[in-house]
Amino acid sequence: MYPLTVDQPYPRNQWWVAAYASELGRALLERDILGEPVLFYRTEEGAPVALAGICPHRAFPLVRGHLVGDAIQCGYHGFIFGADGGCKHVPSQQGIPQKSALRRYPLVERGNLIWIWTGEEALADPALLPDIEAIGPGNPDWAVEQHPLATVEARYTLLIENLLDLSHVTFIHATTIPGGGKVVEIPVTLTESERSLTVQRHGQNLPLNPLIQLQFPDQQGPVHQQFDAEYMGPCLIRTGGTISDATSGKALGIQNFLHMITPASPTRLHYFVNTARNFGLDNPALAAMNIGMGTRIQPEDIDAIETIESVLRSGATLPKEISARIDTGALKVRRRLEQQIRAEAMAA
Amino acid sequence: MYPLTVDQPYPRNQWWVAAYASELGRALLERDILGEPVLFYRTEEGAPVALAGICPHRAFPLVRGHLVGDAIQCGYHGFIFGADGGCKHVPSQQGIPQKSALRRYPLVERGNLIWIWTGEEALADPALLPDIEAIGPGNPDWAVEQHPLATVEARYTLLIENLLDLSHVTFIHATTIPGGGKVVEIPVTLTESERSLTVQRHGQNLPLNPLIQLQFPDQQGPVHQQFDAEYMGPCLIRTGGTISDATSGKALGIQNFLHMITPASPTRLHYFVNTARNFGLDNPALAAMNIGMGTRIQPEDIDAIETIESVLRSGATLPKEISARIDTGALKVRRRLEQQIRAEAMAA
Amino acid sequence: MYPLTVDQPYPRNQWWVAAYASELGRALLERDILGEPVLFYRTEEGAPVALAGICPHRAFPLVRGHLVGDAIQCGYHGFIFGADGGCKHVPSQQGIPQKSALRRYPLVERGNLIWIWTGEEALADPALLPDIEAIGPGNPDWAVEQHPLATVEARYTLLIENLLDLSHVTFIHATTIPGGGKVVEIPVTLTESERSLTVQRHGQNLPLNPLIQLQFPDQQGPVHQQFDAEYMGPCLIRTGGTISDATSGKALGIQNFLHMITPASPTRLHYFVNTARNFGLDNPALAAMNIGMGTRIQPEDIDAIETIESVLRSGATLPKEISARIDTGALKVRRRLEQQIRAEAMAA
Repeated sequence: MYPLTVDQPYPRNQWWVAAYASELGRALLERDILGEPVLFYRTEEGAPVALAGICPHRAFPLVRGHLVGDAIQCGYHGFIFGADGGCKHVPSQQGIPQKSALRRYPLVERGNLIWIWTGEEALADPALLPDIEAIGPGNPDWAVEQHPLATVEARYTLLIENLLDLSHVTFIHATTIPGGGKVVEIPVTLTESERSLTVQRHGQNLPLNPLIQLQFPDQQGPVHQQFDAEYMGPCLIRTGGTISDATSGKALGIQNFLHMITPASPTRLHYFVNTARNFGLDNPALAAMNIGMGTRIQPEDIDAIETIESVLRSGATLPKEISARIDTGALKVRRRLEQQIRAEAMAA
Repeated sequence: MYPLTVDQPYPRNQWWVAAYASELGRALLERDILGEPVLFYRTEEGAPVALAGICPHRAFPLVRGHLVGDAIQCGYHGFIFGADGGCKHVPSQQGIPQKSALRRYPLVERGNLIWIWTGEEALADPALLPDIEAIGPGNPDWAVEQHPLATVEARYTLLIENLLDLSHVTFIHATTIPGGGKVVEIPVTLTESERSLTVQRHGQNLPLNPLIQLQFPDQQGPVHQQFDAEYMGPCLIRTGGTISDATSGKALGIQNFLHMITPASPTRLHYFVNTARNFGLDNPALAAMNIGMGTRIQPEDIDAIETIESVLRSGATLPKEISARIDTGALKVRRRLEQQIRAEAMAA
Repeated sequence: MYPLTVDQPYPRNQWWVAAYASELGRALLERDILGEPVLFYRTEEGAPVALAGICPHRAFPLVRGHLVGDAIQCGYHGFIFGADGGCKHVPSQQGIPQKSALRRYPLVERGNLIWIWTGEEALADPALLPDIEAIGPGNPDWAVEQHPLATVEARYTLLIENLLDLSHVTFIHATTIPGGGKVVEIPVTLTESERSLTVQRHGQNLPLNPLIQLQFPDQQGPVHQQFDAEYMGPCLIRTGGTISDATSGKALGIQNFLHMITPASPTRLHYFVNTARNFGLDNPALAAMNIGMGTRIQPEDIDAIETIESVLRSGATLPKEISARIDTGALKVRRRLEQQIRAEAMAA
């Protein structure tokens, strides 16, 4: 499925952000994850629960039922399933049908995020979670803003592609990202590790713009600024980076944008954005500004990829794809992702 | 097609309710029946007519034409077809093209209902009609209320399943059916005959609720009440039953709900409801109450099965189905219906 | 695809009207032509340009970009393509990827119309354009009115069929075309040439109606009036014809309706209408009346063919088609069109 050349649209042995921690409670939440409706709630003790969202009795959505303690009772004929997925009660009889358990999804709550494992339960290793403390969330030395969730009518790979080629900043976000108009002209370098791939642009001697001035009130001269796009798996891309004083080379601070991407279906995605910085932690103006930037920037990206999704769905003949040298990172990410999907298919 | 395991979605050698008698007149009516648009009207003498709804000249819907006596003239190029379906006139020429007749559907008008036969014309035997006089409509000893037609975005089998498992009353209709909250706890028995299958619940010694009191003003003590679900073919399910004095066992009366189900397409249905009772015939409060109950109950069922239809269409993986012992009746109905469809395919 | 019996929905080695000349300028226009989005604009010198509408870099629609001189720059990552389709610039690098050109469509601007060639570029011969000067547009001895473009949810062949059987005038346009109520009764003759097929009705001794009186204020007695439908290729049908004095047989003038039809997709079409007459050139009342007639008549035809398209898409079983003798012309046009499509497939 474009832009990948593999049969499956996404890897399943993978952690994804399912929800913000604040979204889960004693009210039922249903969210499509990798094409399946998943039911979310918290037990009376507060533990997050994720179960398959369709009652195996007569296919009624469990979100239309209600909680009985830590269990969920279907709203159609009253079957009850526990937080572990097991069927606990069938109305008007004593016994329980065999093989009646709901699928239960492993979850990890970390900071403001609930992560879900969509593959084989035995492989759900929290060590495979991206190290987000290192880039902000959950780290007490950072300030983090949680942006509203957006559900986007586009395949998740289009958002990955969007973020890995920040030359689009010059065209899509020219008026919404201060200094963005020049991004396309900054040379690109590529850094790779086993779990990460970073497309880096080092902006040199950039004039002090109002945004940087707001972030670093004491700064007086030009700055160096990193425009990174770091692929940390299909679930998370970090953009942003370090801002330094151009004269001394001394780092002023790091401003990251965390883009958490979760396929809702083969052609729809959930988009969770967090901003995180290790400076000006108590400055409410910076929090407001980061949220404000998200409010302006995200709709521009969403509009771009929903437009491409429309083209892909239109039945129009796609031209043979061409790429530029700055696409090397994005193309390597395609290969990584295909490799992950293929390896999973081989193992199954 | 779920929940059946046969290739065809419905039997065709079958009577179905096409319309209320009051819907047919000299104004043209088009209604989808088993996936095909059908044109309905009455001749000048009042006989109901059902013809294929698409003009064989250039596929214009005949409902967009107008009646010329008992014939229908297409609104595009003026071809005229008689009430028997035969082509009577082609503009600007004398002759009639060969094999130009519209399909004509056998109809039977009985009481307030127009029944249509959707299969081979030679097999259209009125003796195959369900015996509705025995359960109300057309019987002078009964009062009958005709509820508004609802067209529902769900496969017709979901409504059959809904009605045959009345344990849903406890969950879906807990607040709209007096006494409904206890239905799930009443044991179930099954009665079968060649043309009928009844799932019965005999409610014993039920406290006198306001509904029963309204129906039987002289009743003072508790009652026995039947909660039947009788499958009389895919076109008709009767619910309700006899209400008796719990002390003497003497029958007070019968209150039936007739659910007439007609597939509009493989995934859409027409739902005609009648209420019928053999007591309080002249009590307008009972008629108003029955209509009022329909106004509240039907949308709850419609919502439930449209929700399931959405799940079925969503592409989500359906869990392996489990059933309870109270589903035995509904499962036997599935087998009956599959058997009817298979027998028809074998004969063809 | 109904009503044709060939695999391809339309011929490609064909001129079609892409736009009114007045629609093209320095603002970008995207229009679907034969299932593909095409980008239209004019160079700084005013030459019309048509390029494939999807950027080959990452499938963003080029209409979302902007002009840089005569070139188009993609609005996503800034790739630039010239008016000849060639890639001129890739941001942040010197070279240009190989095989990066956009498809360029041959255009001819003639009178108020922009014609596009949708097939092999080498075969784009302007001599294949229909001779529209002979029937009005571009001819100084005629007055021409340009009606608003309508995009219609129907396969283009339904409009061809509609226009070639003007007996529908009696039923669809009875109240909007003066004298139209009698059209169905006028005998039909057929005239064929290599590039044209005309279904003719010669209305004889028609009473002077208010429309004719407005067109020819000096006319006093009855008139002869031609109701032609001339197929000049799938892109153009002319209706109307000569009006003469019934007594002397002397021609009063010619009133043509030009129906320019362009497939937008297999099941959608663009409908350009022009009216043209060789009399009363300076009479603004006639121009206003022609536009007014289009405003009333076109929606009636559009409604009819969109209704048929809905039937075709509904999945209903189509009855076996019957035809009348007056359909001979329309059926011959089907054969011509199938022949054109087949010949093209054979040559490819």
